[in-house]
Amino acid sequence: MTDFGEQRPSVQESLEQVIALLHKHELVEGLVQRQEGPRQDLVENLVHRLHLVELQKLLDGLHPADIAHILEALPLEQRLIVWDLVKADRDGEILLEVSDAVRETLIANMDEKELVAATERLDTDEIADLAPDLPREVMQDVFKSLSAEEREQLRAALSYPDGTVGGLMDFDMVEVRDDVTLEVVLRYLRRLDEMPDHTDQLFVVDRQERLQGLLPVNRLLVTDPETVVASVMQNEFVQFHPEQEAQEAAAAFERYDLVSAAVVDGKGKLVGRVTVNAVVDYIRQAKDSEILTAGGLKEEEDIFASVWRSVKNRWTWLAVNLVTAFVASRVIGVFEESIVKIVALAALMPIIAGIGGNSGNQTITMIVRALALGQITRDNARKLFAKELGVSALNGLIWGGVVGVFAFVIYHNWQLGVVMTGAMMLNLLLAAVMGVAIPLVMQRLGRDPALGASVMITAITDSGGFFIFLGLATIFLI
Amino acid sequence: MTDFGEQRPSVQESLEQVIALLHKHELVEGLVQRQEGPRQDLVENLVHRLHLVELQKLLDGLHPADIAHILEALPLEQRLIVWDLVKADRDGEILLEVSDAVRETLIANMDEKELVAATERLDTDEIADLAPDLPREVMQDVFKSLSAEEREQLRAALSYPDGTVGGLMDFDMVEVRDDVTLEVVLRYLRRLDEMPDHTDQLFVVDRQERLQGLLPVNRLLVTDPETVVASVMQNEFVQFHPEQEAQEAAAAFERYDLVSAAVVDGKGKLVGRVTVNAVVDYIRQAKDSEILTAGGLKEEEDIFASVWRSVKNRWTWLAVNLVTAFVASRVIGVFEESIVKIVALAALMPIIAGIGGNSGNQTITMIVRALALGQITRDNARKLFAKELGVSALNGLIWGGVVGVFAFVIYHNWQLGVVMTGAMMLNLLLAAVMGVAIPLVMQRLGRDPALGASVMITAITDSGGFFIFLGLATIFLI
Repeated sequence: MTDFGEQRPSVQESLEQVIALLHKHELVEGLVQRQEGPRQDLVENLVHRLHLVELQKLLDGLHPADIAHILEALPLEQRLIVWDLVKADRDGEILLEVSDAVRETLIANMDEKELVAATERLDTDEIADLAPDLPREVMQDVFKSLSAEEREQLRAALSYPDGTVGGLMDFDMVEVRDDVTLEVVLRYLRRLDEMPDHTDQLFVVDRQERLQGLLPVNRLLVTDPETVVASVMQNEFVQFHPEQEAQEAAAAFERYDLVSAAVVDGKGKLVGRVTVNAVVDYIRQAKDSEILTAGGLKEEEDIFASVWRSVKNRWTWLAVNLVTAFVASRVIGVFEESIVKIVALAALMPIIAGIGGNSGNQTITMIVRALALGQITRDNARKLFAKELGVSALNGLIWGGVVGVFAFVIYHNWQLGVVMTGAMMLNLLLAAVMGVAIPLVMQRLGRDPALGASVMITAITDSGGFFIFLGLATIFLI
Repeated sequence: MTDFGEQRPSVQESLEQVIALLHKHELVEGLVQRQEGPRQDLVENLVHRLHLVELQKLLDGLHPADIAHILEALPLEQRLIVWDLVKADRDGEILLEVSDAVRETLIANMDEKELVAATERLDTDEIADLAPDLPREVMQDVFKSLSAEEREQLRAALSYPDGTVGGLMDFDMVEVRDDVTLEVVLRYLRRLDEMPDHTDQLFVVDRQERLQGLLPVNRLLVTDPETVVASVMQNEFVQFHPEQEAQEAAAAFERYDLVSAAVVDGKGKLVGRVTVNAVVDYIRQAKDSEILTAGGLKEEEDIFASVWRSVKNRWTWLAVNLVTAFVASRVIGVFEESIVKIVALAALMPIIAGIGGNSGNQTITMIVRALALGQITRDNARKLFAKELGVSALNGLIWGGVVGVFAFVIYHNWQLGVVMTGAMMLNLLLAAVMGVAIPLVMQRLGRDPALGASVMITAITDSGGFFIFLGLATIFLI
């Protein structure tokens, strides 16, 4: 509680301040190294410290998420200076907020004791989130420090993989019985020091911890305190199972505008809850990784990662693409005699391949999205096929015509123009068929239709485009 | 409130039920058309109606968001049958939930009166969301039906474009004064029938409506009712201005785990609030449009859009790509003489261009993301450049070596292999430089660095790759 109505400084401003202070600090370090006179030393040392003290004060006032952001934006050396200045009791929260790649660099620079101290302070569901990055011995020490109930929770949280509801859930539920009055509930709440974050509803359970209903806090506030919980609680509600896919929970939060939701086991026993902040993080991460994958990156990259780490993060897709490029190259190789006779073919063939790839990617993007949203049923898949074929036939006429005219204008050969137009149409039809078929087949095989779909369609329209164009040219022009 | 602890059926199950009922309905319609005997007629008509009644009952039990989902997954004809069966008083909510493209198809099939009735029922911020799709006369009628205060709100909401905080905000704030006790606040709340959704905090304002602080509902519940609001309210909090970019609000919600936040004008007067559900929708849409743009689609497409509409949605990127393909084609054209002499060049050149494009897209994806997250400062941009050059130099060695060996194995010409390796290295360096420079320059020019970045880098690595490879070959091999 500082000033009245004070607004936080934007995180971007904080970042600039941190950098400015780090610069002053470096400047002084540079001076110290150059003139090592004993008197000079003392003064510089003092100034040096002053900057770090100022920096520390600045950091103490920042939200853990903002410090995480600043750490991600700093090169490794400066990052570690800042990290050392952060109060130890906030280490855990900040580790939770930074990206996986940056977290590794921070953890690599902490000793076992620091890690145990940072982790112990966290909630069990948060410890579970950090666990994969922590050394085994640290986790053992943390485990020992927990109560029996917390150990149980940690075991539960660790047992559900990333991408499941169990991986999103926490254990901060406020539970009440259905046979008490709201007055009793209100008195019970008043005895708590504070309520868990994102408590928009209390969970009504029976003696076996089975979920009976939900009591929204807002309803609690507007209802006569004499009323019994059972008569105001919600009986119809969204609930999840811990094994369910996180994506389903995210969709439900988005559709039904939830703030929190119950997680129950097979017997209807309340085991945890999911809150909207966990869902927001999940949505952001899932979308980010979609975009990164589409760009050919394996995972989020620390922008200051070493060259070697970056090369490793990127080699998979480059290797896959190299193989498809080799295949395309051999397809062209088959037609080398035709190319020697009509060298224009070499200049024109990338057009057919390129536009086919673009059109195929448009189709596949739409189909992958419709699949993810559950909009494609057995019933309408055929309609979609027909539509995409129609679109590519029309596109083939339009763009095929344009490239045909281009070929004619450059090479004054109308037969070449006709072959261009025909090849373009056929390659666009191929792109449409494969653009619909690839994601549907991958889905049927139980694989993620988004993964690698774009590489596959591009490989097909490249090799296919070269084959169609050079093949038609060999038949009709040679 | 139906059954005890009942879970909603999944929306996918509901969709399948709807389709099954529609099929029965169509079957009967088919029968009626074939055998038009007068006695048969009556029976069929009855059965026909029974199915529709069943369908209507099913729809009445569904959440508006689920109906929206079902409408999006149905082809136009079936979509309109379902839309006619939806109770008129839910039309507005459903229109809000469907995608823009599908909303157009629904609105096109409603008359003015229906549209006014559907819209009137909504909150002013929701009316503002629908406004761009509604005919002018409808908006005029709706406007007349509002109270003076609501008109003011609607005008305010309409004045902020999409993508600003003003476009996200609603007006459902509960306001209290700071000099009353919590007991008074609790009594005041109890007089409300219900509290607005997502009310996790009350807004403390003075007589001039200026925001003084926030009273979290959870704190209200755990604090002694005799306490005065001023002594428990939060004085430090996140607040937005209506002109601010929605993206900043989304980042703040994600960082600080907010459920709602105040929107104030330049004088500190409370004008509205943003809630997490609006933010979740915004994040989802922003990421979706990023993915659609990356796939070469202008906007979200109704999967059952007409062929003509789809062609229009896709033509821009195809046209842009065609131009870049023409340029690449002319670059090759310049070297036709070299290709006639060494035809292997034609087969090998797509490899250099393709891998350059992939590598450039990896770099640009990372830089665009880092820019969006605000991780790139003037200070570290040079470090990033150096790192990307290092990555591409190493990649050039590795993959350049591989393609050099490939060329040697196929064509038994070691000079050709060396040229391949050199061309690959140079094109990867070009990809790295442009992959960093393009987004930074676009950002500096005040443009969205994500938009078209991928097309630009691919164009450069294609034409550049052909030029480098064929140029080197012409110099050293011919």
